[in-house]
Amino acid sequence: MTRNELFNQIKKKNSYLCVGLDTDINKVPRHLLEYKDPVFEFNKQIIDATHDLCIAYKPNVAFYEALGPKGWESLQKTVEYIPKECFTIADAKRGDIGNTSSLYARAFFKEMSFDSITVAPYMGEDSVTPFLEFKGKWVILLAHTSNAGSNDFQLVRSDTGKLFYEEVILRSQKWGTPDNMMYVVGATHPNKMEGIRKLAPDHFFLVPGVGAQGGSLEDISKYGFNKECGLIVNSARAIIYASADTDFASEARREAMKVQVEMKALLNRFA
Amino acid sequence: MTRNELFNQIKKKNSYLCVGLDTDINKVPRHLLEYKDPVFEFNKQIIDATHDLCIAYKPNVAFYEALGPKGWESLQKTVEYIPKECFTIADAKRGDIGNTSSLYARAFFKEMSFDSITVAPYMGEDSVTPFLEFKGKWVILLAHTSNAGSNDFQLVRSDTGKLFYEEVILRSQKWGTPDNMMYVVGATHPNKMEGIRKLAPDHFFLVPGVGAQGGSLEDISKYGFNKECGLIVNSARAIIYASADTDFASEARREAMKVQVEMKALLNRFA
Repeated sequence: MTRNELFNQIKKKNSYLCVGLDTDINKVPRHLLEYKDPVFEFNKQIIDATHDLCIAYKPNVAFYEALGPKGWESLQKTVEYIPKECFTIADAKRGDIGNTSSLYARAFFKEMSFDSITVAPYMGEDSVTPFLEFKGKWVILLAHTSNAGSNDFQLVRSDTGKLFYEEVILRSQKWGTPDNMMYVVGATHPNKMEGIRKLAPDHFFLVPGVGAQGGSLEDISKYGFNKECGLIVNSARAIIYASADTDFASEARREAMKVQVEMKALLNRFA
Repeated sequence: MTRNELFNQIKKKNSYLCVGLDTDINKVPRHLLEYKDPVFEFNKQIIDATHDLCIAYKPNVAFYEALGPKGWESLQKTVEYIPKECFTIADAKRGDIGNTSSLYARAFFKEMSFDSITVAPYMGEDSVTPFLEFKGKWVILLAHTSNAGSNDFQLVRSDTGKLFYEEVILRSQKWGTPDNMMYVVGATHPNKMEGIRKLAPDHFFLVPGVGAQGGSLEDISKYGFNKECGLIVNSARAIIYASADTDFASEARREAMKVQVEMKALLNRFA
């Protein structure tokens, strides 16, 4: 998917919502357990109920991997089921030496047809560039993550005065462009969003941490928007587990719509 | 597996060799393609031919993941086949927010029975500690990796004068101990090994980069040994692809034995 296609979708839907498919077999409503593949059935119904309100879906790969080979089948079926107009994100946080990153790229971009994958920067350029060789595919590089541990290493200050996540954002712009690279910027650091936007004015940011983790949609939108919106804001638990009963899909839709209505207002106000 | 059990195995076998099971379906000898699971059959014959010469096996998870659900079955069968006395390493380089790292830990330590997993440090403490909660299991944290890109971020100097990989080694010692945490230190940085050993005198290091990547076994042993050896040196391609023909297993054994003989001499000389 191109950056322009992504922006067009945002304008059409008045939304920059990504629904996180962190589908936990232990939290799936019990009536779905009769299906042959309850995880896929859950995702299918969530996608059916929300795809006009969101622009992206982000399965968290760990939830599928934890189920073994069967989980990978559920993941593959899920990415195939997502409407082509929606941007798909494999939240896998991979990153390894070059020949190994090439294999991961093939797994997520070819064997499965994800548009993008999250990548950890620690191993440097040759761990990232193999993912950039696939036309129309995206790397979403971890910059400043939403978790508590994001303070441990990402805030180490370098001898040039920059924070470590700033080094990551600046150096990685030599490898990729705003057309094939995005950054993960947690909603839990609203006071840093303005500065991060200055470092990467044209890149899209994938923003986790709104909702269960406590980030404010208004703050990150106010400081994070660029001229093409530039934000993809993820919400998982608050939407997909809005109800644990047979009405889970319609309740998920209700929650997604609440977010989308707020996003529409923020786009009108700040974008 | 405990640190003591690992050291006992090193003494018994006069070896600190880890065989990297980077098994590529495209490089498996053609006669194995008749088997239902050629990747597992290849691994099985490599394990049969080498398990008395090495102390550990390290499947590179990307190679299995690239094959989809079938690859995960091959991986699971492989880890079950490895003799219990050998240390098993899932080279997965995972690391995510706490609840997600917990899922990865369950996948590799419970669904599969790996002794250890490689973990990327970028997301900090709460991405690492979930792996440490499993008794008898190990985190192998990326410190200074063997690839060219290891210079991009790992050598950023902090304002306290430390290199970034040094920050990782020092800070992470508050989370784990030499009994449940190791570090990845590439053999391609022999001149840094002495300094790294000073930072973590008692920890085991997993050392990739000998062989195809050009690191010297003698140099890293001289500077890296501690009183319990303290090194697990990985070799993959040079051993498992020693021959592409029907004699691949016996040729792998010949290569592994060459390394083991050298290791025995180095243990006598420096340990």
